Amino acid sequence: MSRVSVFRKEHFNAAHRLHNPEWSGQKNEEVFGKCNNPNWHGHNYEVIVKLTGEVDTNTGYVYDMKKLSDLMKELVINRFDHKNLNLDAEEFKDLNPSTENIAIVIYNLLRERIEDEYEIKITLYETERNFVEYPV
Amino acid sequence: MSRVSVFRKEHFNAAHRLHNPEWSGQKNEEVFGKCNNPNWHGHNYEVIVKLTGEVDTNTGYVYDMKKLSDLMKELVINRFDHKNLNLDAEEFKDLNPSTENIAIVIYNLLRERIEDEYEIKITLYETERNFVEYPV
Amino acid sequence: MSRVSVFRKEHFNAAHRLHNPEWSGQKNEEVFGKCNNPNWHGHNYEVIVKLTGEVDTNTGYVYDMKKLSDLMKELVINRFDHKNLNLDAEEFKDLNPSTENIAIVIYNLLRERIEDEYEIKITLYETERNFVEYPV
Amino acid sequence: MSRVSVFRKEHFNAAHRLHNPEWSGQKNEEVFGKCNNPNWHGHNYEVIVKLTGEVDTNTGYVYDMKKLSDLMKELVINRFDHKNLNLDAEEFKDLNPSTENIAIVIYNLLRERIEDEYEIKITLYETERNFVEYPV
Amino acid sequence: MSRVSVFRKEHFNAAHRLHNPEWSGQKNEEVFGKCNNPNWHGHNYEVIVKLTGEVDTNTGYVYDMKKLSDLMKELVINRFDHKNLNLDAEEFKDLNPSTENIAIVIYNLLRERIEDEYEIKITLYETERNFVEYPV
Amino acid sequence: MSRVSVFRKEHFNAAHRLHNPEWSGQKNEEVFGKCNNPNWHGHNYEVIVKLTGEVDTNTGYVYDMKKLSDLMKELVINRFDHKNLNLDAEEFKDLNPSTENIAIVIYNLLRERIEDEYEIKITLYETERNFVEYPV
Repeated sequence: MSRVSVFRKEHFNAAHRLHNPEWSGQKNEEVFGKCNNPNWHGHNYEVIVKLTGEVDTNTGYVYDMKKLSDLMKELVINRFDHKNLNLDAEEFKDLNPSTENIAIVIYNLLRERIEDEYEIKITLYETERNFVEYPV
Repeated sequence: MSRVSVFRKEHFNAAHRLHNPEWSGQKNEEVFGKCNNPNWHGHNYEVIVKLTGEVDTNTGYVYDMKKLSDLMKELVINRFDHKNLNLDAEEFKDLNPSTENIAIVIYNLLRERIEDEYEIKITLYETERNFVEYPV
Repeated sequence: MSRVSVFRKEHFNAAHRLHNPEWSGQKNEEVFGKCNNPNWHGHNYEVIVKLTGEVDTNTGYVYDMKKLSDLMKELVINRFDHKNLNLDAEEFKDLNPSTENIAIVIYNLLRERIEDEYEIKITLYETERNFVEYPV
Repeated sequence: MSRVSVFRKEHFNAAHRLHNPEWSGQKNEEVFGKCNNPNWHGHNYEVIVKLTGEVDTNTGYVYDMKKLSDLMKELVINRFDHKNLNLDAEEFKDLNPSTENIAIVIYNLLRERIEDEYEIKITLYETERNFVEYPV
Repeated sequence: MSRVSVFRKEHFNAAHRLHNPEWSGQKNEEVFGKCNNPNWHGHNYEVIVKLTGEVDTNTGYVYDMKKLSDLMKELVINRFDHKNLNLDAEEFKDLNPSTENIAIVIYNLLRERIEDEYEIKITLYETERNFVEYPV
Repeated sequence: MSRVSVFRKEHFNAAHRLHNPEWSGQKNEEVFGKCNNPNWHGHNYEVIVKLTGEVDTNTGYVYDMKKLSDLMKELVINRFDHKNLNLDAEEFKDLNPSTENIAIVIYNLLRERIEDEYEIKITLYETERNFVEYPV
């Protein structure tokens, strides 16, 4: 049988701030620069889920892309779109919403709901020029 | 002599909220939907300045693009990048930071510093799918 | 008051064939080349509506972009997405579905439902390298 | 010696329909939704071939990109561009033209003509938001 | 009858240098900066031709896009692709190959061969962030 | 602990020529075609550095993206932007500046300055349709 990776891209727009509450204001500014602005800033995030599995010979599908898109909307877009990641999202109450950490959170949310027979990987674009992948 | 339009694109990332303080919370939510989130959300804005004028026969330039880029950085990017438009920008203290109004503000900021012999127009992308032009 | 143009982009995927039933097969092939394939071919169309009007001082909006997006979905996307333009769309029963004609049809569909105080213009991408605008 | 991967992107426009002839019309519609439209729909496909091998010290090339482009045109673009994948392509007479299966077919066509010393991988975009990779 | 604008995009890769031979080396460097490098630098240029005219009711076309593409290849791409604009192109022997001037040259080359009933306009991208339009 | 890959994209514009000095002019033209133009041609190169490592729990960062961007500017952009790779860059005095070799050179320049605990990989776009990755 044939293993194929399928990819689905969705997007959300959110505000955030990078900040470590255990550090002084000065250290936060040194480390995070303008990303530490106490009044927040924001991004148009693009999230791609890569899902790898066997091609079903009845459908020619690895996974129903509408189902994957709906799952991304339910678990990721509805949760983060037009939100403040630090204030509105339970997941970042005690976790700095760096692109790295947002990708890990998205992975964990999807991993719980996608069967183990499928490998998944998250690519998250904060801007066209800054992006991350998890797991490696 | 030949008139040509030249374009320069820059970007900035900002948080904002759409809100009319003269309206009830309910009306604000009806009109602005999720863009009214009191905790803000954000975007990667792309701004394009179109500048129209005569080609200088000594340089082949309508306008030095480095100078235009520097002017956009001084007047627009430094002012709005990694900022909260409602809280950090004087220009939106009493003006709703809709994409339309942000484009008008950017036009006015640049118009004061670019000589009258040049026509200018602003295109502002809030997302890849929503954008505006001013003046028409 | 300030006039601004706002733009909204949506997409649809459709099959079509270029063909003039009053011409011989040979002439159709000469004129339309591989676009005349009797078994159809298809495209991912991107459609941008440009809408020009006054900025409402209460909202900072020219037009509610969600309303524009919903109108595009109701009138354009639901009608053409995952359809065969020649066979499934009443509008092309007697009209060759060239990019030019599709743009004119989309303009007419939207013009009936958008108030006269707003000017509108359609940009339609058949591919990244071939696109049209109507009206000029 | 140094191993490098080189990539070449080409595109084709095609019509298709997702359908399992062993299933009822109702089941086909449940599984494939609007992709099951009996009158076909279509896409602008983007295909990327990744080819991995040693850098030739005389040329600095892993593989002549013009040769790779010509091979893609001969084996993939000429076969599928402006075609109906279900009706015009021998490869999909008994195989559902899902993005997964199209990628596998493209891989097999190229694998026969590219020497074994080169690994190859296919990325196929059906839309900007849906794409696949084979092999994994 | 209906007037529509059609657009075709092509690209070419070229080397160039901005330089005014009537100026000192110092003045050239002050005005053109790193674009004055005597050993040249280069770009991937994207050129879009906008052509406006009546839709032919027999074809649904304003202009045969294959004919427009062929004309662009004959007059523009074959002339400039993989060339040094200053050294290899007659048109820039005495004309600084600024983006503005390249666009004017391309316009003039096409204007001679496209019938007067069609208006044409050139958009030329030197980079994704720097581009020009002629005529205005 | 969590391993994540982070990516940063930068660009530079350069002239180059593909040429093997040990070959005849005729053989160079046969192998390299128009890329062998003795007067050079050029490209807008896009370079992406992928850096893989552990997420620091204090910052949520694998690596400070500003530091990575600065390093790319210091080592790559300042060295190659608006330059002739064959004439101005020490690295290509005896090495053909194919996309493959440029990527290897960039990798080696960055590898010396990025700590061994981080894996790095370079993706280099010569055009939107031709690109390479190193190491594989």
